[in-house]
Amino acid sequence: MPNPTAAMLVIGDEILSGRTRDANMHHLAGELVGRGIRLREVRVVPDEHERIVEAVNALRAAYDHVFTSGGIGPTHDDITADALAAAFGAKIDVRDDARALLAAHYERTGLELNPARLRMARIPDGAELIDNPVSAAPGFTMGNVHVMAGVPAIFQAMLASVLPRIAGGAPLLSQMIDVGRGEGDIATPLGELAHRFPDLSFGSYPYLRNGAHGTQIVVRGTDAGQIDVAMVELSRLLGRDG
Amino acid sequence: MPNPTAAMLVIGDEILSGRTRDANMHHLAGELVGRGIRLREVRVVPDEHERIVEAVNALRAAYDHVFTSGGIGPTHDDITADALAAAFGAKIDVRDDARALLAAHYERTGLELNPARLRMARIPDGAELIDNPVSAAPGFTMGNVHVMAGVPAIFQAMLASVLPRIAGGAPLLSQMIDVGRGEGDIATPLGELAHRFPDLSFGSYPYLRNGAHGTQIVVRGTDAGQIDVAMVELSRLLGRDG
Repeated sequence: MPNPTAAMLVIGDEILSGRTRDANMHHLAGELVGRGIRLREVRVVPDEHERIVEAVNALRAAYDHVFTSGGIGPTHDDITADALAAAFGAKIDVRDDARALLAAHYERTGLELNPARLRMARIPDGAELIDNPVSAAPGFTMGNVHVMAGVPAIFQAMLASVLPRIAGGAPLLSQMIDVGRGEGDIATPLGELAHRFPDLSFGSYPYLRNGAHGTQIVVRGTDAGQIDVAMVELSRLLGRDG
Repeated sequence: MPNPTAAMLVIGDEILSGRTRDANMHHLAGELVGRGIRLREVRVVPDEHERIVEAVNALRAAYDHVFTSGGIGPTHDDITADALAAAFGAKIDVRDDARALLAAHYERTGLELNPARLRMARIPDGAELIDNPVSAAPGFTMGNVHVMAGVPAIFQAMLASVLPRIAGGAPLLSQMIDVGRGEGDIATPLGELAHRFPDLSFGSYPYLRNGAHGTQIVVRGTDAGQIDVAMVELSRLLGRDG
């Protein structure tokens, strides 16, 4: 059974303007690989309705899951929920279940549940809420799209509550070997090996350390035995003892 | 005259697998904003020919410039140059000007210019080389697509030699105000202001510091006077002295 696939959609003027360094992509990638879900694409788009709708529709058609970050707060530029509703052709309004979560939170914290904050209870019809243990305003899952906040602490908390609902795949395994030679020295044997093991992927990552070139080779796949065989072959081809 | 637009294409299994945290997006975003070029989209795709071709063609048609990172080394998974040639319907082979750069570099460093390294001289017909002061293997500009290495030090060096060739736009200016209140408290006046100044963008970035909620509001645009007026209005609406 092939591994499920996923894409990420980052909704963020602040990333594109260089103000903020995205942290959620790397976190998501690490979490997905641990569950056997292949992250196959990431897009970053501005806080604009049409751009979000277009990207959501392209990605949800192409992948098993789409994870979004950003644009679900109380301000005028938080338009992700409405864009999701438009993408799915669903109605959207303040929903009682989300309103109850916010009301309880603001009663506890003594802040007013004003009209701006109430916007965070706008959830498309048919969506399932995602718990936000940090600041109450929920994310939601609509079809195969999981809509989460951009603030990293909240994104991570939401992802932690979404992932157990999602079927994973065979673990994506990897082994790494560090070779004290430049990529150009090992490229030919590495290419031959990649050709011989079409079910594995061979990544090659050059580095410069204290003036010396080296390469990290990462072999990825789902068959632990095959990876072991490839690593032995790799050591042999590179002239090291296995 | 509107500001030029740009997109970035990150070619990187290592980003999608969670092995590497991308650093080039944030660097590019900062450099472009300083030159009045609007970064409007980023895509991250795997090291796969069809995926690169498809993304290059979508992005180069939609934006004034496309900047790519990754996939131009000597190993089997470095397929960006061939994908670019395919996207443009151009021929590609080892080019004399690129080969000369590599030959000089490897003669200097005493390493062999073997067939794997010579792959880095494969440049599509019609492309203009981008200087690589770090490790010689050049990037290239093909049409409106600027193809650069993924290693951050090399990406940054290549970008520094590309940017002076590109026409910028009116500086993209911004001013920031830090408000010691949660987003939900200021969302309504902020939304009104955004409505009154359609040529400016108003970003709102919540934070939690020592248990207290606060918000940074960033006003962006190209008209310094208009930004000044908006900032005074913002201070007034938020009940602070301008």
